[in-house]
Amino acid sequence: MKKLSVIKVGGKIVEEQASLELLLNDFAKIEGDKILVHGGGRSATKIAEQLGITTKMVDGRRITDKDMLEVVTMVYGGLVNKKIVAQLQSRGVNALGLTGADMNIIQSKKRPVVTIDYGYVGDVEKVNSELGHLLLKQHIVPVFSPLTHDKKGAILNTNADTIAAEVAKAMSTYFDVTLIYCFEKKGVLRDAEDDESVIERITVDQFESLVSDKIIQGGMIPKLQNACEALQAGVKEVVVTKADELLSEGGTKITL
Amino acid sequence: MKKLSVIKVGGKIVEEQASLELLLNDFAKIEGDKILVHGGGRSATKIAEQLGITTKMVDGRRITDKDMLEVVTMVYGGLVNKKIVAQLQSRGVNALGLTGADMNIIQSKKRPVVTIDYGYVGDVEKVNSELGHLLLKQHIVPVFSPLTHDKKGAILNTNADTIAAEVAKAMSTYFDVTLIYCFEKKGVLRDAEDDESVIERITVDQFESLVSDKIIQGGMIPKLQNACEALQAGVKEVVVTKADELLSEGGTKITL
Repeated sequence: MKKLSVIKVGGKIVEEQASLELLLNDFAKIEGDKILVHGGGRSATKIAEQLGITTKMVDGRRITDKDMLEVVTMVYGGLVNKKIVAQLQSRGVNALGLTGADMNIIQSKKRPVVTIDYGYVGDVEKVNSELGHLLLKQHIVPVFSPLTHDKKGAILNTNADTIAAEVAKAMSTYFDVTLIYCFEKKGVLRDAEDDESVIERITVDQFESLVSDKIIQGGMIPKLQNACEALQAGVKEVVVTKADELLSEGGTKITL
Repeated sequence: MKKLSVIKVGGKIVEEQASLELLLNDFAKIEGDKILVHGGGRSATKIAEQLGITTKMVDGRRITDKDMLEVVTMVYGGLVNKKIVAQLQSRGVNALGLTGADMNIIQSKKRPVVTIDYGYVGDVEKVNSELGHLLLKQHIVPVFSPLTHDKKGAILNTNADTIAAEVAKAMSTYFDVTLIYCFEKKGVLRDAEDDESVIERITVDQFESLVSDKIIQGGMIPKLQNACEALQAGVKEVVVTKADELLSEGGTKITL
């Protein structure tokens, strides 16, 4: 099967012009089929603040009320996404900015309220991999903003890591997929205090013990859980690496 | 040749949920191939105001400085566009939101400074009609926001009437195109004070004398100039009508 790289970059990298340019230079150089998924939470928080809208967070997760939904729709779907698309076009990459609503490529369901009401937040139900395949065959490079829709008219704020994982899983029908999470650190660290202590390889089995040994902690846990699920669903390899080392062979490789 | 309807709707209609819903209900019912082009200037002005950015206007035209470019990119490309796309999807229309940067479908050039520096404003150079045709063949309905790009990395604010006319012209290679401008009035009025005095039909030749007789005035002049140019470039018919009468046979029809 042909190779496909699905690359997720967080807000911090795409929101500063200097780091964004370096990233897009590297992204443009990746050979073969590729997909970009971006965040933008910091910009959303900043714009919301300027508009006098308070960002409500519970356990580090944003609550997306009606006002915040307007902000993330603007910032993720417009400001961040279109900036990336225009800059990729200038680098000869035939980028197409997408939310899940566009061509119904990612349909999701508003997260049900259990203990916390996250508001207009979507849990991905279906990625149209056939359409994704069709776009890639035309040498179009999808650039996903972290927004999906419920097919009932509502845009839903959706975690970018999850979108990257769901897209990678769905595209495994057609490709050998490598899912790359760009990150501030060089990879998963054995010692949080030592930036050079990158764990080169983790298997899905090892992940559980690294968590119980408290080597893997905090925000890295859901990221690697996503990674493990993606591998179990057919993704060939997940890489956690530093954004500016995207083209190196470094970082942490997670495999089955 | 097959028929194609290119429909342009202004800010006022798409920015209020009630009028937007009526419009999208009608748009969904239009048979055959169709394209939607929307504005959003009022929302942009409002959001800019909330962000403390002053909207500079010269002769009724917005000056798009760097800050305003960020606002229109957010509002047109994100807020307005994605809301329309999600709501069309809920009506069974397979909408795809686009700026000119997406797949490089509309390339433009930053307007040169003659007497006024309009800032980041684009004059359309090329619409990729082959790509438009390909999308329509897949039953995808393009929804254009009034943004293009210069292929050098910059998004450019671009008049929605112009985008509609340029798209209609380009698509004439493949289709019998009707270009419909939705408007607050029922059509071009013979008497500005009388909303029922709709001129049913105007030819390109008659347009000039209607202008010199001062029957056609103000903002209607550039709109109809666009219309005449579109007809001379191959568009079959231009219609100026009220948004809520989109499905009626009313309005003013402009032909060669």
